[in-house]
Amino acid sequence: MSLLVVGSVAFDAIETPFGKTDKIVGGAASYIALASSYFTQNVNLVAVVGDDFPNEFIAHLNVHGVNTEGLQVKKGEKSFFWSGKYHTDMNSRDTITTELNVLGDFDPIIPDAYQNCDYLMLGNLTPKVQQTVIERLTKRPKLIVMDTMNFWMEIAMDDLRRTISMVDVLTINDEEARQLSGEYSLVKAAAKIQEMGPKYLIIKKGENGALLFHGKQIFFAPALPLEEVFDPTGAGDTFAGGFIGYLAKTNDISFDNMKNAIIYGSAMASFCVERFGTERIVNLNNDELKNRISEFKHLVKFDL
Amino acid sequence: MSLLVVGSVAFDAIETPFGKTDKIVGGAASYIALASSYFTQNVNLVAVVGDDFPNEFIAHLNVHGVNTEGLQVKKGEKSFFWSGKYHTDMNSRDTITTELNVLGDFDPIIPDAYQNCDYLMLGNLTPKVQQTVIERLTKRPKLIVMDTMNFWMEIAMDDLRRTISMVDVLTINDEEARQLSGEYSLVKAAAKIQEMGPKYLIIKKGENGALLFHGKQIFFAPALPLEEVFDPTGAGDTFAGGFIGYLAKTNDISFDNMKNAIIYGSAMASFCVERFGTERIVNLNNDELKNRISEFKHLVKFDL
Repeated sequence: MSLLVVGSVAFDAIETPFGKTDKIVGGAASYIALASSYFTQNVNLVAVVGDDFPNEFIAHLNVHGVNTEGLQVKKGEKSFFWSGKYHTDMNSRDTITTELNVLGDFDPIIPDAYQNCDYLMLGNLTPKVQQTVIERLTKRPKLIVMDTMNFWMEIAMDDLRRTISMVDVLTINDEEARQLSGEYSLVKAAAKIQEMGPKYLIIKKGENGALLFHGKQIFFAPALPLEEVFDPTGAGDTFAGGFIGYLAKTNDISFDNMKNAIIYGSAMASFCVERFGTERIVNLNNDELKNRISEFKHLVKFDL
Repeated sequence: MSLLVVGSVAFDAIETPFGKTDKIVGGAASYIALASSYFTQNVNLVAVVGDDFPNEFIAHLNVHGVNTEGLQVKKGEKSFFWSGKYHTDMNSRDTITTELNVLGDFDPIIPDAYQNCDYLMLGNLTPKVQQTVIERLTKRPKLIVMDTMNFWMEIAMDDLRRTISMVDVLTINDEEARQLSGEYSLVKAAAKIQEMGPKYLIIKKGENGALLFHGKQIFFAPALPLEEVFDPTGAGDTFAGGFIGYLAKTNDISFDNMKNAIIYGSAMASFCVERFGTERIVNLNNDELKNRISEFKHLVKFDL
């Protein structure tokens, strides 16, 4: 099934306890598009970059089967840039620089060929831009998944609430779920957030796994315990890409199949954190993915 | 199979965001003995209390089938007392009072009838006392499980290392695993700690579940997502009690059966946190336990 991915395609500079990068390619949509491309060859990207963005990466997306007709390249302008430094625990980080650049007035133009998409993945962006994307689609997709972050809760809560009310699945982390709902208990938070619109809520807990809520049903997927988390940047987006990619491939949005999608998302994320940026997820092979899924099965399997 | 439980039997006064207790019965061995009694009727307790300790609780342990011959009652002395206050996140707490009292010079006398026990659970205590217990057993138990905490790493690391080297399974939390090993990654920490002696390591992560390590094998059990964690006091001990109780009942110490034991331990702990102190685990019935195990199965089950 066809998948529309909207989000940032950008530059990051990252420092972790293991090392430091210069400007490398990042951005939510880069991770989502790459991760989902392992599941479906019908990925359509809407994003914006400046003319400082490397053609090599765009070519790379194309090799992965990602359609980049909707990737706007703004002449004489610069791509979005973020730099940050992770603490030892890798669960917290300091932002050093945020340069909005082309993202400041991003108008998400949907190419005609992208209309009638079956699945829509809204990567983290201004809630208003995410809403505009939904409004510009002539037919509502079968499933709309939206990622967001605490930043928008602080500066654009009204817009955020409006956009959230329009989607089927919301993905946020545990702290964001608490902030959005005003509830400390994640079970209570999930109930409140589902009342805001999304029938499904995924709460990402980093190295502590992810929870899927739907009504009274709860599914939990662990993160794979790794020797080292080298760089967590993009892990949440890679998770989302694996999740929506698997759903688009199987075209089954039942709760049971979403469980499987979350395991695939978690597996993709476990690769992502092994190297800087997109380095590890640009060249995965099927056997690696199959082995990792098998590791997940062993990790939680018991015979009661 | 017979199980020997050694640890504190004491008073706690607890404050959580949900309320406050006066002095209530607590102590690692109280939780362990109660939790394990749901699995085996051959639980033998070694502990010490003052004559301020309520006979009703001792009678209650006896009703649960716990042998209290090894519970020393010191005339004219006071029981160990701890009071503390939990923060909103329930993962951290401040100790307000610690009165060692009878625990200050606890000499763990093992009644003859307790010798030849098959399983030994050493609840959190001075490492030297834990070691003395092992040395006083005429026959080494089939499995020795030991719980400890960061406090002993700070004031008695040498003793602690010696005791750890004598046991089969060590249970500690994630921060303690990091402190003990000097490794941030739990996978690396687990490898280092296994080199210290215990062939099995259980890392407890509170609301984020528990990990079992054995060589290269890893098993993960989630905590049950609850509407409210009312009082986490004793959850780790209740977990340990369910774990060792299930092993003693099934008399199978394979890695696969330890997985099951961890699920039972997690289920017992999920009850414990629903009320203050031992309130919830003194009167569980079989159906409640069966239903909770079924919730755990649903929580992590997927069909890939």
